[in-house]
Amino acid sequence: MSEGEFEIIDKYFANIGWRSDEVQLGPGDDCALLKVSQGNQLCVSTDTLLSGVHLPVGVAGDIAAHRALAANLSDLSAMGARPLGFLIALTLPEADSQWLELFSQTISRLSHQYRIPLVGGNLSRGPLSVTMTIMGTVPEGSALTRSGARVGDAVYTTGYTGDAAAGLRIVTQGREGHEQLARAYCHPMPAIETGQSLRGIASACIDISDGLLPDLDHILQASGVGAIIELDRLSISSALRAFANTGDLLEFVLAGGDDYQLCFCAPPDRQTSILDLSRRTGTLVTRIGNIVTDRGLWLLHPDGHKTLAESRGYRHF
Amino acid sequence: MSEGEFEIIDKYFANIGWRSDEVQLGPGDDCALLKVSQGNQLCVSTDTLLSGVHLPVGVAGDIAAHRALAANLSDLSAMGARPLGFLIALTLPEADSQWLELFSQTISRLSHQYRIPLVGGNLSRGPLSVTMTIMGTVPEGSALTRSGARVGDAVYTTGYTGDAAAGLRIVTQGREGHEQLARAYCHPMPAIETGQSLRGIASACIDISDGLLPDLDHILQASGVGAIIELDRLSISSALRAFANTGDLLEFVLAGGDDYQLCFCAPPDRQTSILDLSRRTGTLVTRIGNIVTDRGLWLLHPDGHKTLAESRGYRHF
Repeated sequence: MSEGEFEIIDKYFANIGWRSDEVQLGPGDDCALLKVSQGNQLCVSTDTLLSGVHLPVGVAGDIAAHRALAANLSDLSAMGARPLGFLIALTLPEADSQWLELFSQTISRLSHQYRIPLVGGNLSRGPLSVTMTIMGTVPEGSALTRSGARVGDAVYTTGYTGDAAAGLRIVTQGREGHEQLARAYCHPMPAIETGQSLRGIASACIDISDGLLPDLDHILQASGVGAIIELDRLSISSALRAFANTGDLLEFVLAGGDDYQLCFCAPPDRQTSILDLSRRTGTLVTRIGNIVTDRGLWLLHPDGHKTLAESRGYRHF
Repeated sequence: MSEGEFEIIDKYFANIGWRSDEVQLGPGDDCALLKVSQGNQLCVSTDTLLSGVHLPVGVAGDIAAHRALAANLSDLSAMGARPLGFLIALTLPEADSQWLELFSQTISRLSHQYRIPLVGGNLSRGPLSVTMTIMGTVPEGSALTRSGARVGDAVYTTGYTGDAAAGLRIVTQGREGHEQLARAYCHPMPAIETGQSLRGIASACIDISDGLLPDLDHILQASGVGAIIELDRLSISSALRAFANTGDLLEFVLAGGDDYQLCFCAPPDRQTSILDLSRRTGTLVTRIGNIVTDRGLWLLHPDGHKTLAESRGYRHF
């Protein structure tokens, strides 16, 4: 490795972000050393964002950083985990100091905000890609998985669904205005605290990264159940309603990805706890449907008829 | 995500490799759940291998898999850690089934051999790159770091140094023969057991990934010491001597990377323990020099004169 590479690491990545006693040896050795407190399980996940696939070509450093870390935090959130640390494997076409400055500042700010230390990484020259690996902890046996949904459970989402997909269109088309939607795409804020509050309440949970239907379908597959979603209960922002035409609207809400909100299930008797946590954490929580015996993902239209949904999201291959 | 993507994951990555009780939830949810036994620290590291940079363009799936996992295992080895689990973030230009078959078979075989389970990953379409994140455990306070080298310590290497760099030249030039060298590049075998045996013996340790001198220099920088390396003590294979001309030989041995062997330091009174572990683990261990007060990396030539070495390795930027 070169001085150039180590200089970049020193200049933009050393001593940034949140510090934690759980990090017993930080970046700079062959491995970082972390403490996982007794009675906790380690949660770990990795996600890649590629220029031209998950990120617009020519994406600014702050947006790349924000979306990559949010995508990873969102996976912790979906497990109900507390952040422990993360690693960045960054591939860059060139050492662009302005880009690196924005990237590093954003990583540092979010690292503080979510109290998650940067514990290691890798820097290479090549087409722009950001792979992060994130670690968190959950008290043993309390993680929210995809497989616990039961017939009779209600289905909920947090925040608004579809804003980020509309935001992506706005950003790639270079359109002005629609700031709430653009922000939902560029600067998503995963509901880490909400995820932790759902431990012991939610029966199953996933983050909405690929789209509401494909992601909910993962819960249905893992739990061996079906669901019925009431279209007039979906959590749609007024910003999205103002932006989308009638045809687009449901496409954004049902199939658009990148929201990094949660979709979760819970038994009916948890309704009060969910209202409580919504108030306590300031999170919008919307009941959008129910878990049913009939396999598949059913849509209940406002006129009362039901259709079976197509659940596919983005296709890589 | 698409069915194509999930089909690839199901076909090539589900249910492969070593299983461990420490993996309490494997791939397929938002995060994997792992158990870190009490009294242990978690070691974690990430490494990216890019086509055209760390891997020859058009590299076969088995070589990409082997080199990526070896590079990551090598970081565990350098900490004295026991493998716990790893994640693969794979970016592929196309779903080439033969390539994926070779990749997956090699991952599975090494996973068994090193007893390290695959706990998660990510698959995207794009220019070939393999980013792995590896986790291991060490009993608290026993990790081998880079910062413990002290004046008077001896400097050792494991295995042969320089074989992999010569192997890379052989592979990229498509030359026949020289199998030991080609194997050192394509199928390096990190000394995981040796690393663990060095806990309590080595004062500092690093893996040789960038080249002997640049890697040893990391130890010197972190420990605030210098070293003198005796050129006629270097661990050079007869295969490398047969391949390289006199001018190339030292370049391969001192600056060539990719060996994934260990370079470590130990107080003189540990010599017997080191001979013991060498016999017990079947690892070639060679004493190549000493830690000295004079900062810098000194080379002692066979004729008795000393020069200050240039320690730069591969430059990414």
